[in-house]
Amino acid sequence: MKSFLHLKAPEEARNEYFSIFDSFRLSTEKIKSDFGLDRILAKDLFAPESLPAFNRSTVDGYAVRSKDTFGASESLPAFFKVIGEVNMGKPTPLEINSGEAAIIHTGGMLPKNADAVVMIENTQTTLIGEIEVGRAVGHFENMILAGEDVQSGSLIFERGWKLRPGDIGALMSVGMIEIEVYRPLNIAIISSGDEVVDPHFEIHQGQVRDVNSYTLSALVQKYGGHSHLYGISPDNRTIFSKIARQAFQENDMVIITAGSSASVRDLTAEVIQGLGEPGVLVHGVNVRPGKPTILAVCDGKPVIGLPGNPVSAYVIANLFVAPLIRKLSGQTNFFWEQKINGILTVNLASSSGREDWVPVNIIRDEHSKNCLIEPIFYKSNLIFSIIKAEGFIRIPPDITGYSANSEVEVVIF
Amino acid sequence: MKSFLHLKAPEEARNEYFSIFDSFRLSTEKIKSDFGLDRILAKDLFAPESLPAFNRSTVDGYAVRSKDTFGASESLPAFFKVIGEVNMGKPTPLEINSGEAAIIHTGGMLPKNADAVVMIENTQTTLIGEIEVGRAVGHFENMILAGEDVQSGSLIFERGWKLRPGDIGALMSVGMIEIEVYRPLNIAIISSGDEVVDPHFEIHQGQVRDVNSYTLSALVQKYGGHSHLYGISPDNRTIFSKIARQAFQENDMVIITAGSSASVRDLTAEVIQGLGEPGVLVHGVNVRPGKPTILAVCDGKPVIGLPGNPVSAYVIANLFVAPLIRKLSGQTNFFWEQKINGILTVNLASSSGREDWVPVNIIRDEHSKNCLIEPIFYKSNLIFSIIKAEGFIRIPPDITGYSANSEVEVVIF
Repeated sequence: MKSFLHLKAPEEARNEYFSIFDSFRLSTEKIKSDFGLDRILAKDLFAPESLPAFNRSTVDGYAVRSKDTFGASESLPAFFKVIGEVNMGKPTPLEINSGEAAIIHTGGMLPKNADAVVMIENTQTTLIGEIEVGRAVGHFENMILAGEDVQSGSLIFERGWKLRPGDIGALMSVGMIEIEVYRPLNIAIISSGDEVVDPHFEIHQGQVRDVNSYTLSALVQKYGGHSHLYGISPDNRTIFSKIARQAFQENDMVIITAGSSASVRDLTAEVIQGLGEPGVLVHGVNVRPGKPTILAVCDGKPVIGLPGNPVSAYVIANLFVAPLIRKLSGQTNFFWEQKINGILTVNLASSSGREDWVPVNIIRDEHSKNCLIEPIFYKSNLIFSIIKAEGFIRIPPDITGYSANSEVEVVIF
Repeated sequence: MKSFLHLKAPEEARNEYFSIFDSFRLSTEKIKSDFGLDRILAKDLFAPESLPAFNRSTVDGYAVRSKDTFGASESLPAFFKVIGEVNMGKPTPLEINSGEAAIIHTGGMLPKNADAVVMIENTQTTLIGEIEVGRAVGHFENMILAGEDVQSGSLIFERGWKLRPGDIGALMSVGMIEIEVYRPLNIAIISSGDEVVDPHFEIHQGQVRDVNSYTLSALVQKYGGHSHLYGISPDNRTIFSKIARQAFQENDMVIITAGSSASVRDLTAEVIQGLGEPGVLVHGVNVRPGKPTILAVCDGKPVIGLPGNPVSAYVIANLFVAPLIRKLSGQTNFFWEQKINGILTVNLASSSGREDWVPVNIIRDEHSKNCLIEPIFYKSNLIFSIIKAEGFIRIPPDITGYSANSEVEVVIF
């Protein structure tokens, strides 16, 4: 990908930019599996043993040799001598010979020679120590075989798998109490602008509080990274470059939100360009909001410049930063982006030739189960109108909008 | 809701059981807003000030009095004297009189008497200190007014709002650096069964490792609770009751996974019944997997008994435990459950009269953008087959299944 300064389509910019990091690999760390939720496996995992480790009953009843039940029916039951009970959690010393049965509970270990379990519902106790079986059972009926769940040595999770709650239990089931995962990405966040102040301090006329550092930091946390705030740089090349260089050296990735005026946006690009080779690859993406986005690679590390406008920064963070974090984190099981289809309530115009992302609210019609999609009309720079949006719809560059009653797809950020 | 022992439909059981906790309220704590991601607001929040705090430009250009531009066009431009530049981040001392303009940047504070901004693209510098304006601007054009985003005193977030990344930034924008949130729910988890052992210890023939404690613990974490493992109780009433009582006293909620045989399931119900009044309300839900689910309220606290079978426990945890945690946590903004519609690849039969939850894989057809939904056929007790599922489809009790090519809805757990 060569450097270029014309506006890129978002999809194209993302694909080309992301492909640069195809061979990026984080270092790894060992953790206890108990703490594995949402962590990403750094190695393929193979089952160290088979599961279950022994033949288990799936019902409450009697372990038997299936051939002894052949032909048994309610009108012509088969008789069995009960030779004992399988205790839970212990290897059973019992051994089933012809005409014999043993009491067994769900999950119990089948005794030697037993190859099926008769459900208790299909038996009657006649004499003490004897049962009638009123239904034949087939070979391996009402039981699972050793190794039927997982075979020792089989692949159970692939490298890049992000662990969900059930996965943690599954690891424990085969005794994998420690796992190797990718360490979290360290991501530096820098805000800039002479007018921007830390919200923890007093504000004066003409100043605005830093919003982007905190939105971005929470977004990084949401996707499993560690965020590191480097504060707010003034619009001064020397200071800005110094902060950016330190952030760059101490992290895997840097996100800078630019000052909002055109002159200061150029300063951001220059500061990024100074961090390493090749530098800025994309300066301007054909999307609204978010046009002045900068995508750069400096000595192999991603550096992204976001618009200073909090609304634009929020949208672009979801369109570019979040998927890049997922990619660099090593995650390969993306499952499904959260999307809702619904019916647009009004006409929605868009400039042809540019991708638009429009914030919307979703109204669920409990009768029809349809969702009504209501666009939020907002002015650039208004934070609260857009923050309360339940999702966004994308208007592709090749159309001029959607008419009312169109079916549209809402992406939940 | 009175105690009953017949099988409840899942929807009915959930609605009746959950309604008992309508007035449940967690205590609250104050935290720094920086740490607010995924926390739940315990109070309605009102804006302590207006945003923006001053009239701001939304473009780079010149602040003017709009009436001075009336009639201006490219062929007949209006002339303005440039009296200075608005510095970012400071109150400007400038004051615009008739025929005057001031350089202003995006986000800059409008000088006194200015009521619009001319975009730089619509101006030309003629003499030093003078510009030509080639396009008229309307009153308040290219600016946002003080308070246009949020008015001081207006409601910005309601009690029960779970904070997303953009919300954290929004709090900072109005200087709310500390918030009051509900404390996390403390949830006790008890496994039981003579055959169940802690995965951190050696396992012997006939034993199985505890899976449910770890799956449930991760699920509790996922929904923002604090999980506390009370280990594995043997199938002994005295010991089981003692563990259950301690767990009950130390937590807001208790989840017990029962031993898997019928006799031991009754023991779980008895132990729960002994914890407080009224005790067990639902013993058996008409769903597969998961029929032997126990729903109880003991002295106002929820106690849930899950089947010991890890597959059943996993499904019921998602159907009952997860939504109950969300409810008790105080969360009111649920947004949207993650669901995918797709086309079923095969016929899928179900016992009429019972709700079935069937694990599925989702295959996205990149051409048609349709999802193909492929059921996973599994045996009870097989952990890995179900853990790898991407979602579940619900077959309601009043139908006997779906035919191939039906459109079905997949719930992502």
